[in-house]
Amino acid sequence: MISETTLDPEEWDEVGFAFHQAVDQCMNNMKSVRNRPVWQPVAKESVLRQNVPVPTGERSLYELNSFFNESILPFSNGNTHPRFFGWVHGSGNIAGVMGEMLAAFMNSNAGGRDHAAVYIERQVLNWCKNIFNFPFESSGIITTGTSMGTLIALKVARNTHAGGDIQKLGLAGMPSRLVGYTSSEAHCSAAKAFELLGLGHDALRRIPVDSEYRMDIEALKHRISEDRMNGLCPIAVIASAGTVNTGAIDDLKRIADICHNQDIWMHVDGAFGGLAILAPEFHGRLTAISLADSIAFDFHKWMHVPYDAGCVLIKNEAEHRKAFSSRGVYLAGLDCGLAGGEPWFCEYGPELSRGFRALKVWFTMQAYGMDRFAELITQNCNQARYLGELVKSNSGLQLLAEVTLNIVCFRYYDRGVPEIELDQLNIRIVTELQLSGIAAPSTTTIKGHTAIRVSITNHRTMTEDLDLLVEEICRLGNQMRGK
Amino acid sequence: MISETTLDPEEWDEVGFAFHQAVDQCMNNMKSVRNRPVWQPVAKESVLRQNVPVPTGERSLYELNSFFNESILPFSNGNTHPRFFGWVHGSGNIAGVMGEMLAAFMNSNAGGRDHAAVYIERQVLNWCKNIFNFPFESSGIITTGTSMGTLIALKVARNTHAGGDIQKLGLAGMPSRLVGYTSSEAHCSAAKAFELLGLGHDALRRIPVDSEYRMDIEALKHRISEDRMNGLCPIAVIASAGTVNTGAIDDLKRIADICHNQDIWMHVDGAFGGLAILAPEFHGRLTAISLADSIAFDFHKWMHVPYDAGCVLIKNEAEHRKAFSSRGVYLAGLDCGLAGGEPWFCEYGPELSRGFRALKVWFTMQAYGMDRFAELITQNCNQARYLGELVKSNSGLQLLAEVTLNIVCFRYYDRGVPEIELDQLNIRIVTELQLSGIAAPSTTTIKGHTAIRVSITNHRTMTEDLDLLVEEICRLGNQMRGK
Repeated sequence: MISETTLDPEEWDEVGFAFHQAVDQCMNNMKSVRNRPVWQPVAKESVLRQNVPVPTGERSLYELNSFFNESILPFSNGNTHPRFFGWVHGSGNIAGVMGEMLAAFMNSNAGGRDHAAVYIERQVLNWCKNIFNFPFESSGIITTGTSMGTLIALKVARNTHAGGDIQKLGLAGMPSRLVGYTSSEAHCSAAKAFELLGLGHDALRRIPVDSEYRMDIEALKHRISEDRMNGLCPIAVIASAGTVNTGAIDDLKRIADICHNQDIWMHVDGAFGGLAILAPEFHGRLTAISLADSIAFDFHKWMHVPYDAGCVLIKNEAEHRKAFSSRGVYLAGLDCGLAGGEPWFCEYGPELSRGFRALKVWFTMQAYGMDRFAELITQNCNQARYLGELVKSNSGLQLLAEVTLNIVCFRYYDRGVPEIELDQLNIRIVTELQLSGIAAPSTTTIKGHTAIRVSITNHRTMTEDLDLLVEEICRLGNQMRGK
Repeated sequence: MISETTLDPEEWDEVGFAFHQAVDQCMNNMKSVRNRPVWQPVAKESVLRQNVPVPTGERSLYELNSFFNESILPFSNGNTHPRFFGWVHGSGNIAGVMGEMLAAFMNSNAGGRDHAAVYIERQVLNWCKNIFNFPFESSGIITTGTSMGTLIALKVARNTHAGGDIQKLGLAGMPSRLVGYTSSEAHCSAAKAFELLGLGHDALRRIPVDSEYRMDIEALKHRISEDRMNGLCPIAVIASAGTVNTGAIDDLKRIADICHNQDIWMHVDGAFGGLAILAPEFHGRLTAISLADSIAFDFHKWMHVPYDAGCVLIKNEAEHRKAFSSRGVYLAGLDCGLAGGEPWFCEYGPELSRGFRALKVWFTMQAYGMDRFAELITQNCNQARYLGELVKSNSGLQLLAEVTLNIVCFRYYDRGVPEIELDQLNIRIVTELQLSGIAAPSTTTIKGHTAIRVSITNHRTMTEDLDLLVEEICRLGNQMRGK
């Protein structure tokens, strides 16, 4: 007859011990993170740099776990370290890890059907609606991140404003060309979405910014009316609630007014900055998010949920569902039983199979409470302001943009050094900081200058870490200049 | 000064104990899964059915874990159970859970930069190239699943064949309308991708199938030449390596020949069936995957990696990268340091932030070896054949499609019962099976008839489970008919 095998272990207890050991090692690693370099390159001789054959035969969890501890874990990208200041990365949290582990054990597919994972996801989405003051009837979906959330929102915007049955006929069958608007400081995900949606990145008009890096509202109005005069069809404005370069927050209220008056979809890219609405200091500048048609933001940034987890909320549930609802006969819903649970989440996004990503978010929100995140966001913004003051008061440094949120852009500076050399020097300083393992800021370009960019989205950063950062930048810069 | 707080626990040991407890509970749950119902609805009085306020204040991991055990874990979608036969779900595996847990502790962002997560992902991709005999120079990316993989591949196909600078100008700026082809039995993800990409689902021609549910090759040729005569531009054929309804495998070799001769992109949807290439019995029918331009498939189906994890491989690395490579100044790569590690994975897909999804795949492949998966795939196909024979030999059942892979479509049947009643009856049988917790097949439509669809993608299923399934279907059917 048929001989039968399974992936289940024969010795469950042994597997249990291997898990306990793995947990303890990771916990020790996390506890002692401050004593280690922020980052170190994967070792030259590491097997990770080789291409090994496709695995055959069995390997024990002990063996794999020990390889992980020696060859993988020490070579992370550093964002769990208190002096990781690069890009915008969250630092992770232990309750989120537990949620992720439990979700992996449970192995649910949250694409549809009637089971706990979809209820937890709906609960998390309802909490998010509450945070951004979106109506309860809004729809939403947990995504891998804001890029996917923005893509989903802009597909709905495109379809809603296309002026024809675009699902069926495509863009080539629409009466006019579709265009959208965002600021010159906006994140590249909006342009990527325009390309994917078939609109092309030319169709995304880059509106200039004011001195505070916010979208120039008059320029926006002008461009919209110019486009309309040329027979184009404006579909969406993508406003930034926290730009990635400097943390600038567009004037959301005025953009909402324009969109409302002109029947244009307003989408907010709140990737990291959106959640600053929790902090009293920023609440006022972000309340107008509730006037938008959609918002996308990340849980893995300022809520420190383990990667990856983001979200999109959309006010028009019907248009949202219509834009993504294509189910085959093999996916027919039934009134009751496992095939119940309508509406299915696969009708709100491009994915049919979806992990139980909601659980790590639920664990994170439940374990700490949202008041705690308000406190931490405030703390990071205070730390950014502190760093800004340090920079201003240091004659060897130059602040390149006012600190508005949690991002500080500055450079090692000496007026005697030509601009091109300053750019090179600041890149070298950042690289050296990373290679030495002392700190990990990243770089960007501000007003044509290479900037050292410090983004504090980190619940482990302490003020003394910023003191050390400034000290080291000055030391390295002086050393490189032979001072 | 600034008062500073962190999400890290004060008592690390306590957290460690909470993790150990959580692991042990999940392990016991997995070990005893056979003794429980496949599925049960979330309890009527469960707090999961209520909308509770946004969390404030702290909750201990013990408290959360205990809620999880009582109110979430028992209400899964059932796919870890040996008698879960619905849709196509993997059953999970313990090594994959460990990989997912370790990835969550590490909290890497695999969107780019130079760190272990990107090396592990490259290794997994190289193994996949080897499995499908794709050249080493091919590119690829780990995705949430095949829907996303197919979307990525079709974007590259669209851009490569559009006949103009579509990234910049969009579809409206292209010289001719773009069309693609797939069979009438293909998965809905191809149509969803066409809609998202702005092509519209009319542009995806549904080619009829032959008696074995494979794409009719002559009809494909005819439709392509008809479209060309009408000035349309064929960009892609999406072939199915295992259709979701019946497990049919398109004639990949002949489709590859047509695509090669006509300069059309060939994409293979190998969501679950692609990996049957590992099984000697199916190897021959799937070797022509190596002639395709791209293949997308899932790790969370027949490799039982915890949800979600899939993959896309693309032969033309340059076109792949070009289609997704939009990085802002804040994402500039550097020669060395943390910002090294080119090319970055965010240049091969729509996401910038990406979890370390590769680790659970790496753990799964390493722990069991690919020979083990070959064995399990063969086992499931043998079990499907066994069930097919059981159905054929039972006068109260009717087989609706020949068993080719791991899917068996049949129905409770009595020639005295009108068709419309048979449809209702079979839906009731499936719902009752699910509600009773005995087994969870799903339903589909085959030749206009409602079918009970049993997909065996399950490393826990034993032959006796199929005996029980047939017995229960007959019992329920007879009971419902008052026999």
